[in-house]
This record gives sequence, C-alpha cells and structure tokens, in this order.
Amino acid sequence: MNTSFLNELLTAVAERGRALIEPRRERRAATRTLPALITALLSERGEASGAAIAADILATYLGLDAEGRAGAFRVMRDQLGADAEALRVAAQAYLDTPYDTAAGDLHDAATPRRLELLRRLNLAPGGTRALVDMRADLLAELAADRSLAGVDRDFERLFDVWFNRGFLVLRRIDWSSPASVLSQIIAYEAVHEIHDWDDLRRRIDPPDRRCYAFFHPALVDEPLIFVEVALTRDIPGAIAPILAATREPVPPAEATTAVFYSISNCQVGLRGVSFGSFLLKQVVEELARDLPGLKSFVTLSPVPGFAAWLAGVAADADHPLTATAAQAAAALAEPDWHLGPEAAGLGKTVLPLAAHYFLRERSRSGRPLDAVARFHLGNGARLERLDWLADPTPKGLEQSHGLMVNYIYERSEIEANHEAYAHSGKVAATPAVSRLLRALPSIQPAA
Amino acid sequence: MNTSFLNELLTAVAERGRALIEPRRERRAATRTLPALITALLSERGEASGAAIAADILATYLGLDAEGRAGAFRVMRDQLGADAEALRVAAQAYLDTPYDTAAGDLHDAATPRRLELLRRLNLAPGGTRALVDMRADLLAELAADRSLAGVDRDFERLFDVWFNRGFLVLRRIDWSSPASVLSQIIAYEAVHEIHDWDDLRRRIDPPDRRCYAFFHPALVDEPLIFVEVALTRDIPGAIAPILAATREPVPPAEATTAVFYSISNCQVGLRGVSFGSFLLKQVVEELARDLPGLKSFVTLSPVPGFAAWLAGVAADADHPLTATAAQAAAALAEPDWHLGPEAAGLGKTVLPLAAHYFLRERSRSGRPLDAVARFHLGNGARLERLDWLADPTPKGLEQSHGLMVNYIYERSEIEANHEAYAHSGKVAATPAVSRLLRALPSIQPAA
Amino acid sequence: MNTSFLNELLTAVAERGRALIEPRRERRAATRTLPALITALLSERGEASGAAIAADILATYLGLDAEGRAGAFRVMRDQLGADAEALRVAAQAYLDTPYDTAAGDLHDAATPRRLELLRRLNLAPGGTRALVDMRADLLAELAADRSLAGVDRDFERLFDVWFNRGFLVLRRIDWSSPASVLSQIIAYEAVHEIHDWDDLRRRIDPPDRRCYAFFHPALVDEPLIFVEVALTRDIPGAIAPILAATREPVPPAEATTAVFYSISNCQVGLRGVSFGSFLLKQVVEELARDLPGLKSFVTLSPVPGFAAWLAGVAADADHPLTATAAQAAAALAEPDWHLGPEAAGLGKTVLPLAAHYFLRERSRSGRPLDAVARFHLGNGARLERLDWLADPTPKGLEQSHGLMVNYIYERSEIEANHEAYAHSGKVAATPAVSRLLRALPSIQPAA
Amino acid sequence: MNTSFLNELLTAVAERGRALIEPRRERRAATRTLPALITALLSERGEASGAAIAADILATYLGLDAEGRAGAFRVMRDQLGADAEALRVAAQAYLDTPYDTAAGDLHDAATPRRLELLRRLNLAPGGTRALVDMRADLLAELAADRSLAGVDRDFERLFDVWFNRGFLVLRRIDWSSPASVLSQIIAYEAVHEIHDWDDLRRRIDPPDRRCYAFFHPALVDEPLIFVEVALTRDIPGAIAPILAATREPVPPAEATTAVFYSISNCQVGLRGVSFGSFLLKQVVEELARDLPGLKSFVTLSPVPGFAAWLAGVAADADHPLTATAAQAAAALAEPDWHLGPEAAGLGKTVLPLAAHYFLRERSRSGRPLDAVARFHLGNGARLERLDWLADPTPKGLEQSHGLMVNYIYERSEIEANHEAYAHSGKVAATPAVSRLLRALPSIQPAA
Repeated sequence: MNTSFLNELLTAVAERGRALIEPRRERRAATRTLPALITALLSERGEASGAAIAADILATYLGLDAEGRAGAFRVMRDQLGADAEALRVAAQAYLDTPYDTAAGDLHDAATPRRLELLRRLNLAPGGTRALVDMRADLLAELAADRSLAGVDRDFERLFDVWFNRGFLVLRRIDWSSPASVLSQIIAYEAVHEIHDWDDLRRRIDPPDRRCYAFFHPALVDEPLIFVEVALTRDIPGAIAPILAATREPVPPAEATTAVFYSISNCQVGLRGVSFGSFLLKQVVEELARDLPGLKSFVTLSPVPGFAAWLAGVAADADHPLTATAAQAAAALAEPDWHLGPEAAGLGKTVLPLAAHYFLRERSRSGRPLDAVARFHLGNGARLERLDWLADPTPKGLEQSHGLMVNYIYERSEIEANHEAYAHSGKVAATPAVSRLLRALPSIQPAA
Repeated sequence: MNTSFLNELLTAVAERGRALIEPRRERRAATRTLPALITALLSERGEASGAAIAADILATYLGLDAEGRAGAFRVMRDQLGADAEALRVAAQAYLDTPYDTAAGDLHDAATPRRLELLRRLNLAPGGTRALVDMRADLLAELAADRSLAGVDRDFERLFDVWFNRGFLVLRRIDWSSPASVLSQIIAYEAVHEIHDWDDLRRRIDPPDRRCYAFFHPALVDEPLIFVEVALTRDIPGAIAPILAATREPVPPAEATTAVFYSISNCQVGLRGVSFGSFLLKQVVEELARDLPGLKSFVTLSPVPGFAAWLAGVAADADHPLTATAAQAAAALAEPDWHLGPEAAGLGKTVLPLAAHYFLRERSRSGRPLDAVARFHLGNGARLERLDWLADPTPKGLEQSHGLMVNYIYERSEIEANHEAYAHSGKVAATPAVSRLLRALPSIQPAA
Repeated sequence: MNTSFLNELLTAVAERGRALIEPRRERRAATRTLPALITALLSERGEASGAAIAADILATYLGLDAEGRAGAFRVMRDQLGADAEALRVAAQAYLDTPYDTAAGDLHDAATPRRLELLRRLNLAPGGTRALVDMRADLLAELAADRSLAGVDRDFERLFDVWFNRGFLVLRRIDWSSPASVLSQIIAYEAVHEIHDWDDLRRRIDPPDRRCYAFFHPALVDEPLIFVEVALTRDIPGAIAPILAATREPVPPAEATTAVFYSISNCQVGLRGVSFGSFLLKQVVEELARDLPGLKSFVTLSPVPGFAAWLAGVAADADHPLTATAAQAAAALAEPDWHLGPEAAGLGKTVLPLAAHYFLRERSRSGRPLDAVARFHLGNGARLERLDWLADPTPKGLEQSHGLMVNYIYERSEIEANHEAYAHSGKVAATPAVSRLLRALPSIQPAA
Repeated sequence: MNTSFLNELLTAVAERGRALIEPRRERRAATRTLPALITALLSERGEASGAAIAADILATYLGLDAEGRAGAFRVMRDQLGADAEALRVAAQAYLDTPYDTAAGDLHDAATPRRLELLRRLNLAPGGTRALVDMRADLLAELAADRSLAGVDRDFERLFDVWFNRGFLVLRRIDWSSPASVLSQIIAYEAVHEIHDWDDLRRRIDPPDRRCYAFFHPALVDEPLIFVEVALTRDIPGAIAPILAATREPVPPAEATTAVFYSISNCQVGLRGVSFGSFLLKQVVEELARDLPGLKSFVTLSPVPGFAAWLAGVAADADHPLTATAAQAAAALAEPDWHLGPEAAGLGKTVLPLAAHYFLRERSRSGRPLDAVARFHLGNGARLERLDWLADPTPKGLEQSHGLMVNYIYERSEIEANHEAYAHSGKVAATPAVSRLLRALPSIQPAA
C-alpha cells in the first residue's frame, strides 16, 4: 500500500504541531487583555479570526509568571464554568420530564464554557502542545489549591477524547531517530537513568535492543510514553547485565525473550490519560511479528513499595508477620549488607515476605499494594518470578532492598488474567511464587 | 526544519486509518452477539482486548442490512443513554447545592454511555472511518425516525471534538495526488460536475488552477472538503470560460485574481461539523504567500434560491415587488430565452430584483435567504458583483435564471464584515450592488 | 529502522527531478548561442555557473525544432568527440609501452568530450529527465542518419552507469499511487492495452492484482519499466479471464500462483539499458515474502514471432516442415477460424510446430527466434506450457494465431537454467512441451 | 507540488543504501574463492544471480584483513585492467583509420574490466556504501604502493559519474535530524572541533545557526560534506565569539550576514570528487531565499599555510622580505606573545606579510600558496579582510599565528572573479587588503 501522499499530508500536521507560540512581547502587542481576548474567542459566532485570537491568548499566557497563570486558572474556574441559571433550568426540566431530549439538553447545559475555550485555543498553531503544557502548570497549582479541581477535570476530559488511543501511533525509536526526540528519552527515563548520549546509544542501537514510543499526530516530536526492551536468551534475574556498557549483543535471531525493563511517561500534562497497557500490547504484537523466535515477553520490574511496606510490618505489632519482617529488616539495615557473604542467603527470608506482599496484601480498594504490580496485573500479566539481589543500586536498595520481579505477558492468558483481576482482584502468579508462602508462619490473607 | 521523522511516524497513523474493518463473515465468527459485544467493550475495566472487541463490533455492524443497522441505533438510543437514576440524583444534587463540583458531577452523569462506546470503537484499526460512515447511515435513518436525534447529537458532539480544526491539514490536490483521493474529488464535486479524468485533470493540473482540501490524520485518503481555484487576470463574470476544455492558461505570475468557483463537502457523516470558512481563509493565506501578485480573492458563486424566490414573489400579491417580479418571471419562462436577442437586456429588470433578494430579504432568523450568501457573508466576505447570464446550464437556469455572483474576500475587512454580520445581520456589499435597488419601486426593507 | 530523515532528504531529489526545463522563449533570452554555451559549459575550469549554463543549453535545445535538434547532435558528433591528436599520441604511447598507466591515459584520451558535456548538463534542475528525452530524439534521428551512432553510444554508455540497477527502486503501483504515475502506466502498457481509468483500476486495485515498477531517484514520477501481476489458483491458459471486467477476485491468501501477464518499458530514451530481468527477480522475492502461499511464478506471454515464422516455413520449400506448416497455415487463414468448431482441434497440428519453433529453431547467433522467449529463457525461466486459443484478439491472432505460452520462474533452478542457456543456448522446457515434437516428422535439430 | 509518492519511493532507495554487507562468517559460507566469485560476477552474461554474487564478494572482502584487502587491489591491478591484446589492436586500428567509430571502439577497449566489476558490485544491497569504504582502504594502501594508482583512477572515474552533482541533495541539518547523521557531524568536523552533543547542539539548534550538507540517494545516512553557518550582524573578526557557549542569539530577522565558518568533508573514499564549491553556492541561494535580510555571505577561514611560509621566508636569505619576516617570526616565537600587551600592535608587522602571502606568492602552477585561499578564490570569492588575533587556539597559533581571513561571496561578481582567477590566476581582493602591501619594502611580484 502506498502511504506516501500521507507522508506529505501529515507532515503538515507535524508542522502545525511544531509551531511555537511565542510569548507576547515578541509579537505585536495584543491590544486586548486576557479576559477580553477570551471573551472575544468565545463570543465570535463565526470564526473570522479565531486562530489569531487563540494565538494571542496563548502568547499572553506564556508571558505570565506563575502567579499570573494561577490567576488565569481562577478565571476559568469562576467565570467559565457552566451557566448556572441555564443549568438550573435544564436540571429542573430533566427532573420534570426525564426523557432523552431533556438529558441531552442537560448535557449541553452542564458543559462548562472553559471546555469550549480549550477547544478553540487549539486553533492556534502549536495549540495542542501549549495546552498540554498549560495543564502541567495547572497540576502544579492544583497541589496548592484544590479548588481548581473542576478546571483540571475539564482538561483531563478533553485530553481523554483528543488522545483517544485510536489516534496514537507506535513508533520504534532508534539511532536514526531525531536528536530532538532522543533528548527527551534521556530526559524522561524514570526507571534506570540514562547518563549521556553514549549511554542512550547503548539502549537503542545494538541489534538486541528495542525502544518503542507512542506519539500523537499533533505533538509530533514528543513521545507520550516509551518502553525499553532487551532481547535475551533467558528471563533475566538482574538489571546490571542488561545495562552493562560492555557486553556481547545477542543476535536477534537467537533471542527467545523480550524483556521490558523500563517504561516511562513523558508528558506531565497528560496525567490521568493512560497509555501504558495499550503500549505494551502493541509492542508485544510488533515484536512477535518481527521476530518469530521470541517465546516470552516479560518485564524486569522494580518493586517500589516493598521496603516501605516491610518497615511498616516490622513496626506494626498487630501484623501476623511482625517477627519475620523485623528480623529481615534488621539484617537489611546493615551497611553494605548486599556485599556480604550472607546476602544471597537472605533471600530465603525476604522472598517469602515479598510473595506475601504481592499475593496477600491489599489496599482498601482491594488491589495489591505495589503500584507497578497493579499496572502489570491489571494489564493481564502474571507474576512470574521474584529476583533477589537484582538491583543493588542505591535507589534499588532503598526502595526494595534490591528486589526486582518479572511479570510475564502470555498472550493466551492475558484476557483471562485481566478479567479475573478486574472482577475479583485475583493476582495471577506462577506456582513457584505461591509456594514461597509456605515458608511463612500460617496466617489469614489480609484482604 | 526537518519534518522527516514525522513522515514516518505519521505514516503509521495513515496505515491505521486505511485499515479496513472487514465484515464479519470474512473473519473468525464472533462468538458474541452485538449487544453482548457492546456490553463487553463498555464493561472491561482495563482494556485487555478493547481493540479486538471494537473490531468485532464494527465488523458485525457492517454485516448488517439497513434494518439491522437501524436496530443498532435504537439500542444506542434506548440502552446507552445516560443512567437515568444517576442523572436524576445528580440533577437534584446540583439544584440543592449548585457549586462547581456538583456541576462537574452532573456533567459526568449526563454523559451518555453511547459516547463512551463510540470512543472505544475508535480503538479498532480504521475505526474513525467506520464511525463516520456509521453516522452517514444514522442520518439516513434519522430522516425517517426523529427519535434517533439524541443519538445523532452525540455523534456530532464527538466529531466536533475529534475534528477540531486545529487537527486538520490543508493540502494541495494536483495531478501527482493519489488516484484514490482524486476519484473522490470527481465523486464529491457538488457545484460544477466533473465528467471524467480528463475533465478532472483540466481542473487541477494547468498552471493556473489550484485545488485544496482539508484532511484529518485519521482519515488519510479522504478529503473532508475541497475548493477549486482558478487564477485569472480579472474577476470573472461567467463560469463557462473557466471550465472551457480549450483555453490558454494564464501564467501564474501574471494572475491578479484567485477565483474560488467550487466548494464541496465530501463526508456526509460529518454534517454539522463545518470546515468551510476555515478552509477558505487558509487557502487565501497560502495563495497570498505563494503568489504575491494576487490582489483579489473572489468567488464565482451560484445563487441557488433565486428562481424559487422570484416565483414566490411573483405569486404573492402582498409583496411590494409582485408586479416587477411577475413581469420578469414571465420573460424568463420563455423557452430558450437566454439564447434570444433580449437576453442581455433582461438583466436590467432581473438584477435589481436580485439585489433586493440579497440585501433586503431576510429569513425569520434575520439572515439572507440564500444559503450560499449566508456562508460567504458569515465568513466576512462582501457581495461584490452580480453576473447576469453567467451560468446558462440547465441547472443554472433552473435555480437562478443563469445568475451568478462574486463574493470578495478582502483581508483587511474580513473581521469587521464578519462581526457586523454576526451581530446585526448587516450584508456587506459594494455600492454598485446597492445602487441596483434604485431601479426598483420604493419599498420598505423587509427585515 | 527509521527511514524518515531520508524521506525528506530524498524529497529534495524528487523536486530536482521534477523541475522543468522551460523552453528558452519563456526565460530571459540567453545571450549566447548553443555552441557558445556548450563551449562555456565545457571550458569553465571551476563551476561558477555550471547549473545556469546547463539550464540555458537545455532550454535552448527544447526551443529547437527537429531539424535544429538534429543539428545539435551533429555538433556533438563532429566537434565533441575525443581530441583526435591527443588520442593519436596516447594510442601510439600505449603501443610503445603497453603498461597500466599508458592504458589509463589512453582511456582518458579516448573519452569523448560530449560525455563530459552530458554529465555537466545534468547539473540543471530536471537535467536527467531532459537528457533521457534528448536521447529519445536522437534515436529517432539515428534511424535516418547512422552516422550519429557514436553519439548514441555515449548516451547509452552514460545511462548504463547512471541507471545502475543498484540505484533503482522497486515500488508497488496501486490505486493510491499518484495519478501522474498511473497515467504513464496507461500510456506505456505495450502488451494488453489499458482502455481508460476504469480499466486501469481493474488492473491494480483488486486484492488479487499487483503492479510493480522500477524507479530512479532522479526521475521521480516516471516508471522505467513495470510488470502487471494476477494472483490465481492455477496457471492460466488464456488472457481473457484475467482481463475480464466482471470476475470474482481471488482472496490473496488462497492464491497459489502469481502470473506476470504484461511487462512494458516506459522510457524510449533508455533503450539498451535493460532492467527487465532484475525487475522480475525482485518481484518474485517481494511476492514470495508477502504471500507465503504462492507456489508458482509464471508468465502468460505472447509469442510475437510465431505467425511470421510459420508463414516463412510454409513458403520455404527447403524447410523439413514445409508441408505440415503449409497445412496449418491454410487452416489458420480461414476467416474467423477461431470461432469455428475445429478451432480447438487445430491445436493438435499447430502446437507441435510451436514446440519446434521454441526448441529447435535458432537465429544466426544461436538463440531462439522469439524475442519474448529469449528474454525469459535468458533470465533462467523454463518453458512450461503452450496455450492454444489463449489470445483470440486481432493482435493475438495476427502475431501468433492466438497462441500464448507460460514461462515458469522456479527459484531453485533459475541459476542453472540461466547458465545453461548463456553457455550453450539450451532451452529449458518441461517434458510436456518436448513431447509435442514427437508429432512432427523426424528431422535434425536446426541449431 | 505533492512530493509524497516520492517519499515512499525514495525510502526504498534509502533502505537499499542502509542495508549492511555482513562479513562472510555471518553468512552462509561462500563456496567460491574471491577470484572465482569475481570471475563469476563478470562472466555471467545474463544476471541470474548478480546481486547475490556481488554481496558474496563484498562480504568476503570485509572479512579480509589489511593484507588480504591489498591483495584484492593487486588482483584488480594485474588481472582486471583492459585486455592488453584487444587494446593493442584497437589502438592500431585507430591509428590506421582515425574515425569516430574507431575512437569509440578504442574507448571500449581501453575500459578496464575492474570498472565493470565495480559497477556490478553495486548490485548488492548497501553496495555503494561498501565501495566508498573500499576506496578509503585503497587510498591508505596507495600511500605505500603507488602501483595501485591506476586502480584508484578507476574508482575516482566511477564515483565522479555516480556522484554527479545533479544527483546530490542539499539538506539542512538541525536538532531534529537523525542522531546517526549528527554523530557524523561530530566525527567529521575538521576545522573547529565539536566536543560533545551539547557543543553540537549549540552549532545547529539556536535560531541564528544553520548547517547544511550534501547527501546522495544511495548513501542515505551519510553526509558527503557539510558547512556550518552563523547568522550575525557584522562580518566577524574572530572565531571565539561565534563558538561561545554563552551568547545571546541574533534573531534571524535582524541578521545581515551569513558566516561560513567551517566546511568539512565526510567521505575519505570520495577524495577527488569535489562538492565544496557547489555546496556553498547552493547554500547562498537557500539562505538568500529564506532570509531576505541577509546582505553579505562571508567566510571566517583559517590560513593553514601562513606560519610555515613565514618561517620559510625568514630562513631564506634570498627572499626580498627576509628581514621583515625574520623580525616578525622572532616576535611570534615568544611564549604567550598573544597574551602580551604588544599582541595587537604586532598586526602592523604581520598583516602586510600576510597580504603579500595571499596576493603575490604563487606556487609553481601559478596559484596562491594557501589551500583554503585556492578553494574560495577558485569559487569566485573575494579576499575581504585579514583578521589579526582571530584564532588564538593552539592550532590557530601554530598554523597561522592566530590569523584568520574573510572571503566574501558577492553574487554579482562570483562569475567574473572565478573566470579571472581561472584564466589568469588573478586574486580578487578588496583595496584594504591590497593597501597593506604598501607597508612592505618595495619588491617585484613573485608570480
């Protein structure tokens, strides 16, 4: 299929997306204030100059300091909500005659004007980019001022529609990708830091490495989320060999296993619009098609909540595992314990506790305590193996006493795992993981 | 600026967009019924298999006949609206405490579940295309069954967000465009029919012709709307010389005038999502940049409602122009009147009536009667000239007694014209047009 | 692998290639005559203005009529050969001391200056296109004036290097290809005429049709050679079912056979630079990769020399098959013989003669008489089957009495077939073809 | 103009170009030796398997060590020259009848078989890349073994035709270019070293920086030559401010001057195929079109031969400027002289000597002594200004005592300057430069 006309066609989207909204001082002075501009943008019944006004608003916004921006959000909150009187009438009308039309009218009346504002701001070149950045500002402000939650809700609502996963594009990132994209991979890697360009090249250029990201046509140079993959001969039990600067690459044709060892979000402003599960599934499909020799798709994942949990249990006299946990915690508190001769043996004590952490502990909403676990189990993965002494970096030791785990994506069971997890919170795990529980004192499941 | 990574990146969007939803019989038999599939798509809390279920639903839908499809819309109407009880509670809550949060909750409660269904259906490859086609089906059904209006309202609501003009791309269409795109130009030309590929080539290939269309990244081979442009040395007073098979092209550098002589929508399913005004403005910018010699941007437009209006006036004894109109109508009722020696002279009688039709007659909503006039005046254009005997084709004679008009887009006055029209219904017209009114019996303006 | 930077990079090649050399009258008047311009282009030691002079020369050339162009070729012949004196000296020097350096110097001295001229003309935008067209002019002139053969030899020599098959690109042609490319497919189809755009669409758009062409980066919109392919369930024995306007497409997954039923060259000016064998081999690879279900790659080919040969034998009293041939020729001379009841039966007489034509008759250079046979056999194909009554169009009846044949490309034997043919002229054929010879009177092989 | 089909079309060229020839050990063992493979590639009359054999040869070559490769070149020299006997006959034939046909035959006979070998090797995917690398090997070997000069001459001859400037593409390099391309810019910068990726970004990303390179379609990721440009408000007199890590960028709209401050070749294997002059001319055109505010196009160039020349004159008792030169050389021999208070004043002595160096000194072939001067003057530039203390880096001090110069490209005089230089060796210089000579003892011009 020729995809060429599109290339060019879509290049134009790209150029729109790349356009810069320049702060106001570098443009002709806007003759209207921000509120006047907003009124103008919303009131024009036609759109004689919508794009120009939108660009003026965004440039004015960019020229504001943090306080000024917070002020803009308060304007959105106080003056650009739904029309209170119209909404009251529509609500009453629905209560009186609860038919489809009244529900539709009520939906319209409940739609805040700021939602229309955001949509019209997108007319400016580079508008989507500017709006995502604006939400990042808003989230920062929201931490201090919860009264902006309704404004944020509308941003998220809109982005949820705009960034519909049907519009996202999966692209491989490699050494022939633009430096502008690659510099963001360096900046946003959140799991295992990338130190410099040489380090980056080791992650994406060797034949046994892959990196994939989701992009949106209107944010052309900006990955939304990306995953780093290592092709290996076995399920790995530690991160260091994967990141090693000197290692012999595995010829792709000999690889049997694809290891997802890092997943990172890039856009703060898109918080709440989740792409991760979709990303992994598409990457599995892509890899399976390209490399028919791949048999396993696994993660090598951190356990970010484990150390904190263990400390909590050790300190909680009511917990049935207090004693075991306290003993383990004491051993793990020794300086450089992981370099000592007993380090490997400690696994015998810690791994059963970790199995308990994954399989039996539950949050109030009935989900596993570990955020990474919730992500992969929610996607339909299975907890495959606990890896002792897998990440002895300072961060790894601090968060999880060096523990990592493998989640496995078995295509034949993803749907069933996902449904069981979604409906009943069931954690899919291999028997080897479950068996670890036997080493613990007999207790009742916590959930 | 290198736009290349994007090319490839966006090619992937294109491929998603081009993917075909195949009717069900050609796929593995779906094991679930349409309602069961819809339930599944909406209920999956994660999205273990959203894309596959979405594809199943769309394929099942495609396999239905018209009656089956109407049934599907009724399911959307009856079972996928807002949750009535939740909406009632939220409406009451808002009436009780009309704060921002309650308004937000009410907005959520008023959002029909079918909106979420449509968004999830977009996960299927080719989903956007399929949904636009589905709306075209719905519009056909809606003509017979107005009770589906609420469903249609949700389609339009969603498309309005998805097809935000900030995401659209203007592309020139020429002889090196894909045949798949060009065949749609032939099919959708609604003003001056394109007879075959040779005729098409005459419209887009000569150096003094241009054609531009809007595209959306997710509908890659499908123009949304397009405009045909002729570059000329003067404002044209008739359509035939522009469409003539044999004519000497004007070297672009010598052209002073860009004539928009045809604007056509391509996507029935996007009715109500208007792109036209934005298209013309962008084309004016594009042409002005490419060809600095261009001084005027005008249309050569039909007057589709004129003949019917004239007949109405002639038959309406209460109308102040009855006599004049009746006299004109009689002359225009002669067979082949336009070929006779008095044809040119008839303009003296008819053009003042036409000026009245444009400048003084108003619909109940206070707008000009002519749909094409409303479009261009609403965009900020000015009525520049009435062209007598400009379109003596059967269609032209039938709709407007051969009359055409030029609207002019003067960049310096577009915004003012638009605002005057939007606020007070004022029709911008050159004095030459207004002066024609003097030939009429003195009357009071109709509006 | 990201191929995107390239897209853009190469778009620039495309634009160079698409640039038009405008005839002189539309440019500033060149102030120098053609010979003066040529002298200037060749003499500039640097290249302060090579591209501009080259463009002037090409534009001046384009402004010439046929006689003027012939004059330009005569200038190339008479004044732009090798420097006779320098060549004499170098030839003598080599004869005196036949070493590598002297041979290199002789090579330089023997290089005609027109070769350098052609290379410098390529500096003009659109230069490659213009030079290929210039050669087409030259070939027309050459038919009348053989003294230009040396000039033509240099064009061919240069094109042979420039159009090195390592630089060619195989592209699929389909309904999303540019109309500008497709219109050339219509124009250059040389085997089975394409009547209009609907006919073209039937050749390239259905799922069981493929079309591939070779392109060169500097001739971007211009296919060099293309092949049309039908995917079928069997080796076809006639052309009509393949070209039928109404037929049920074969789902590609069910196809077992790819039929090359038409191969056409597009560029007269590249005569002698053959791409055909390379094209077929690449298409076989491409199809085999895309459609693993394909088992056979065959042609359905005309036999353009058969009728003439048969007439010759029938009239040649010395030929051992005169009587048989004369009898067949008489039957085939009946008007509308192919519609009569004996048509099928005639095959019994004609096919053995055809087998003889392919397997035993040889040209003076020891090759088969049939040009199409020489092409496919030279590529390593095997003569698979003779198809009687396969092409009852007027052209088919006239050239080959309706006979067509299938050549088969068996990947495992291509190299061996090719070598046997190249070294000893051996024609690879299935036993079924060879067995047909038994029906003939016993004779000695002609070769 | 839609350039899109091309994008895709040309992407295929790119992929061919990017393909890797893998060393032999990683492929099926070639069953034939290198000489046998070469014989096979050259002897196949058709091309049943040309591409495969070519790939085998290149892979075998890549598997060789330096000695093995040298052996391959000797095979080319000894066994793949022109056929000596055929050449002798053709040379004699030409001497006997020196007509066009005989000259053509002689040209053919003088064409070494290794030229055909190189052309056929290009059939392998990635062949062009491999051949350019092979020439780099050859050049290294040639330094030790001049008998390979004839082989090298054929490589250059072929590359001269393949890399015809009509096939080259000028592309801007910026921060959205592929990292694979950018890493080569870092590697090949030959004038002012790029230290790391941050340094690179400072050269190509700020709005007042530009970088352009020539590419060839068959070498897709590999720049052939590139130039770095700074946009400034004045002609710069020193390099440090241009390379400074902290500086305020000049808004492009305010720039009046484009400064070419570094030109570097990337492909050793293309030595002798010069692109530089063409590159600068195209960049001037491109910049003039993009930035109409630019008035001057100048270089800031090193003077690599100046220090050596000065030392030579100081030591040459016969030179008319010995005394002046010796005095200057002594002052410049002081450690850290450029930091001392007399540094600026020294210019009064040194600059006249430099003017003499540029304007009056000539090589035996009558050209200026300085290689950089020959390049720019040969392109039609004018020597605009001598910049004292312009490059006080160790390299700058060593090569030119810190001197740099500006050459100016004045579009109106390029052709005249070039011709005067080409015909009579005239050095174009501003009067200010010439006037410096007055400070010197009166002498006769050296040329």
